[in-house]
Amino acid sequence: MRLRHKPWAREKVDNNPQYVAAAPKEQKGKWKELFESDQPIHIEVGTGRGRFVTEMARANPHINYIGIEKFTSVAVDALDCMLEANLPNVKLINDDANELADYFEKGEVDRVYLNFSDPWPKARHEKRRLTYKTFLASYENVLVDNGEIHFKTDNRVLYEYSLVSMSQYGMKLKFISLDLHKSDFEGNIMTEYEEKFSSKGNPIYRVEAQF
Amino acid sequence: MRLRHKPWAREKVDNNPQYVAAAPKEQKGKWKELFESDQPIHIEVGTGRGRFVTEMARANPHINYIGIEKFTSVAVDALDCMLEANLPNVKLINDDANELADYFEKGEVDRVYLNFSDPWPKARHEKRRLTYKTFLASYENVLVDNGEIHFKTDNRVLYEYSLVSMSQYGMKLKFISLDLHKSDFEGNIMTEYEEKFSSKGNPIYRVEAQF
Ligand SMILES: C[S@@+](CC[C@H](N)C(=O)[O-])C[C@H]1O[C@@H](n2cnc3c(N)ncnc32)[C@H](O)[C@@H]1O
Ligand SMILES: C[S@@+](CC[C@H](N)C(=O)[O-])C[C@H]1O[C@@H](n2cnc3c(N)ncnc32)[C@H](O)[C@@H]1O
Repeated sequence: MRLRHKPWAREKVDNNPQYVAAAPKEQKGKWKELFESDQPIHIEVGTGRGRFVTEMARANPHINYIGIEKFTSVAVDALDCMLEANLPNVKLINDDANELADYFEKGEVDRVYLNFSDPWPKARHEKRRLTYKTFLASYENVLVDNGEIHFKTDNRVLYEYSLVSMSQYGMKLKFISLDLHKSDFEGNIMTEYEEKFSSKGNPIYRVEAQF
Repeated sequence: MRLRHKPWAREKVDNNPQYVAAAPKEQKGKWKELFESDQPIHIEVGTGRGRFVTEMARANPHINYIGIEKFTSVAVDALDCMLEANLPNVKLINDDANELADYFEKGEVDRVYLNFSDPWPKARHEKRRLTYKTFLASYENVLVDNGEIHFKTDNRVLYEYSLVSMSQYGMKLKFISLDLHKSDFEGNIMTEYEEKFSSKGNPIYRVEAQF
């Protein structure tokens, strides 16, 4: 994610508490109160500019969505996307997903989406990959029993790594596609990165993995 | 596998019992007696023209290899390959791997190789795929505890299917490569199909899966 310096972003994010959870740790166990309707909560970790989570919210009004993005200069674009869409079932956390267990109680989340997560290709950065075992444990910690991770990426090496990591963690792999756009998967909603990389001709890899 | 009519093949296979186990069911529990040295046994199911299993035997003298090929007209080529190589640690079963449990006792096999297995793309032929759950059960049935399947293919759909099937069976996936020839895997021995398909530019998919 190319970061541009946006001194006004912090203020804009702070001034839109109807979309951006101001103090996510204080919301723990009480996320349903933030939404109009009490319905399953799906989160996207590393939401970027927010198109996926917003379009998913539009397509699935009976699910509540929360995008988590650590960089304020990026989160502000996700906020713009949500302001424009004006939907009751999508919110944003502008904070680091490292602290997921402080934001959600066990069972409060029904599904985790990971889309085009940073690949961290160097072996010494393995622990930073969002599919490293400590992250998997943190997702398990907030998910319902038998909860799922839905993961897409164009990065072959991260994908190979992630399948093994999920399998070694004891997760069951359900749907594997090594070329999502040529598969029979229906209703795919493209993320910003997905549009960029697939337009270059890269295949998109996808998996659903269940705890 | 293109089958040519070779009326002499049956006779040739029958006349070379030093390589082709004449009555594999009678060998059950006694395979080690057939080999010069008592060492781990690795089998390849669907061995085709036998290059892989023969070259593996040459490269790994401390492993005994058995290729299983149901078609005599194909197995005879594998026999030729073995006759030429003249190695003590490779044999052939010219029979159907459906009956694996009749050929080997539990724990008699140390590893199963599947290379470029027939894809059986139609859903109604799922049960014929060599990574269908009943086949996985039959491999588990003859393998040592924590035994492994090493699987290579160029067929994307069979590979996607197989990863899910193995995972759903409860196997752990260990090494996944979506482009074997560009990976850092060392000592790869190409099969006949692998040479053909990779020379067309197809990526080769590989996985090691452990029971
Ligand atoms: C490569 S971008 C992909 C963005 C979007 N998912 C897409 O597909 O277009 C990854 C995003 O994840 C965010 N990110 C990475 N690690 C994170 C973490 N621990 N917590 C929150 N956001 C994170 C980055 O800031 C970046 O915006
Ligand atoms: C596509 S070819 C691949 C041959 C070789 N492994 C290679 O990579 O070049 C598959 C082979 O598996 C054999 N085969 C398929 N099912 C089998 C079974 N149930 N028992 C024994 N052989 C089988 C076929 O006869 C065929 O020769």
